[in-house]
Amino acid sequence: MADTTHSLVELTCPAPLTHKDTVVLGHGSGGRLSAELMQSIFLPAFRNPALERLDDQAIVRVHGVRLAMTTDSFVVKPLFFPGGNIGSLAVHGTVNDLAMGGAAPLFMSAAFIIEEGLPIETLQRVAMSLHEAAANAGVQIVTGDTKVVERGSGDELFINTTGIGSVPSHLFLSSNRARPGDKVLLSGSIGEHGIAILAQREGLEFESPVQSDSAALHTLVAEMLNASYEIRCMRDPTRGGVSSALNEIAAQSGVSIQLEEEAIPVREEVRGACEMLGLDPLYVANEGKLLAIVAPEAADVVLEAMRHHALGKQAFMIGVVHEAGGPLLTIRTALGTCRVVDMLAGDQLPRIC
Amino acid sequence: MADTTHSLVELTCPAPLTHKDTVVLGHGSGGRLSAELMQSIFLPAFRNPALERLDDQAIVRVHGVRLAMTTDSFVVKPLFFPGGNIGSLAVHGTVNDLAMGGAAPLFMSAAFIIEEGLPIETLQRVAMSLHEAAANAGVQIVTGDTKVVERGSGDELFINTTGIGSVPSHLFLSSNRARPGDKVLLSGSIGEHGIAILAQREGLEFESPVQSDSAALHTLVAEMLNASYEIRCMRDPTRGGVSSALNEIAAQSGVSIQLEEEAIPVREEVRGACEMLGLDPLYVANEGKLLAIVAPEAADVVLEAMRHHALGKQAFMIGVVHEAGGPLLTIRTALGTCRVVDMLAGDQLPRIC
Repeated sequence: MADTTHSLVELTCPAPLTHKDTVVLGHGSGGRLSAELMQSIFLPAFRNPALERLDDQAIVRVHGVRLAMTTDSFVVKPLFFPGGNIGSLAVHGTVNDLAMGGAAPLFMSAAFIIEEGLPIETLQRVAMSLHEAAANAGVQIVTGDTKVVERGSGDELFINTTGIGSVPSHLFLSSNRARPGDKVLLSGSIGEHGIAILAQREGLEFESPVQSDSAALHTLVAEMLNASYEIRCMRDPTRGGVSSALNEIAAQSGVSIQLEEEAIPVREEVRGACEMLGLDPLYVANEGKLLAIVAPEAADVVLEAMRHHALGKQAFMIGVVHEAGGPLLTIRTALGTCRVVDMLAGDQLPRIC
Repeated sequence: MADTTHSLVELTCPAPLTHKDTVVLGHGSGGRLSAELMQSIFLPAFRNPALERLDDQAIVRVHGVRLAMTTDSFVVKPLFFPGGNIGSLAVHGTVNDLAMGGAAPLFMSAAFIIEEGLPIETLQRVAMSLHEAAANAGVQIVTGDTKVVERGSGDELFINTTGIGSVPSHLFLSSNRARPGDKVLLSGSIGEHGIAILAQREGLEFESPVQSDSAALHTLVAEMLNASYEIRCMRDPTRGGVSSALNEIAAQSGVSIQLEEEAIPVREEVRGACEMLGLDPLYVANEGKLLAIVAPEAADVVLEAMRHHALGKQAFMIGVVHEAGGPLLTIRTALGTCRVVDMLAGDQLPRIC
């Protein structure tokens, strides 16, 4: 198994928490502190095989039917941002977590925690855009819940969406299935969602404004699976970005991954914003991109299928899976040097989803 | 259809909101304002047959398998109270919403929204008691999510649980199935959860402290369905209490319901607390009780089955369903007079679940 202090594999024994006393913002970052919390509090408490896969969705069986189930609470701030809002994001996030398990999304719940004083008109706009995103993704919102908390006990609006989908009977995607020789595919340019939120929140103005890439990826996934079942696993690099998603896959599969920096598409305005803000695009959140680890013989055909889909036009092969040993994730820069890409430590951008 | 201003049936056309501009605490009460929000914002936005049943759970079909799905966010304050805490409550609430649809609960998600600064030890206690409640109910927590918000943007801890269960193929329970002549059964004494929370929150001291009745009702339901399938619908009278649950059933079924006050069990300490606080137990929340509307010929056998179960020992037949006309819900008092029991207006006890 991989030999690093933050391997998810070795952390299956309750891990020492970096922050022992209280929850800090970084525990919600999707990075190393999130993994610690998962390993030291939630896994020991809830321990069961479906949860221990540590994928973005659980796969369960009911009367012989394979179902995927996933949950996400959305606390994004601000509620509205270029390219979307908390309603559309809640649908895309949950649809994508189902799709990453190869599931066709079917039904969704929507639960609202509202801070007293939220304008009714805001709630209405969010509900409509939640509906539109769900309708576009072919998902029905079949059940819901509304709670209201006093002023100062919430922050405008939080939404939980939980989704179920059906998984083809012979498809087994999981983060522990990457093998040496596999290829790493990325569906498009990275960092847009995180930068769009940050710019909106901080009132930053760029020459060409950055839009969130928030989108439902299930039809892209369907095309990829149509091309080949030799996909080992998929992840949408949301909180913690590409770096956290690939660190987790490497740790869970007991392999290492090497990326090629030049192959990773980053739009000019995102690169500029990241330089200005001192951020590395590999750590910035995406909401409409996916990473796929694919068997070497199937990589070309899957990449080709991705490029035929509107959401995969800019897909690239960005790296290769190697044997374990040394760091989990490294990147070869344009200059030919190699650097370690660690998991996100602390909290780079709180409340981006 | 029933002729009252707050009939859920007539409100299927977008209703005028009593509070037009902003969300108020009462919108989360489970009473009339909650129904207004549902009818004027969420139903028009999400409109689909599964949601429009307006039951506590949706029934959907995946590859021929009937599934129930339900979601609830828990914002109870304080987190710990006599008889339970937010973790056990989150499990019981979701298990019960599944059980009320006749579903055997199977899998559950758990999503945490944590306010920065929450003691890790608190989170650990809650997670353990969530696990214990789930294990006792035979439900697996298969997927989860953690978000952290800044100090002052939340209130310690909110939890969403979403559950799925399997529904027998020939069972069709729904709030629109009550018919004149049906009997109303109640599984035990009312008002304990709401009073336990209120007492804890306000630091009230009673001679004998009131414990929450929080409990998982699915095995009680299994015994009832074992006795007869002639159950029209079931409801656990949580937010808004017995009054709101029965008003909703009467509205959705197009009938009226008459209760017998003397038949409704209320424990002495709950009655005393209600008198002191000016509350009517019919409006106070329960988290381990159920109401069942049962065909007249099956009422005795179902009641008998309830009384054989630990959670139904104090079950009673508390009322009868009549034709529509006049108020949806009335109660005949011990003195023989009759009074209307309206839906909860405003918010009697915020954040009791």
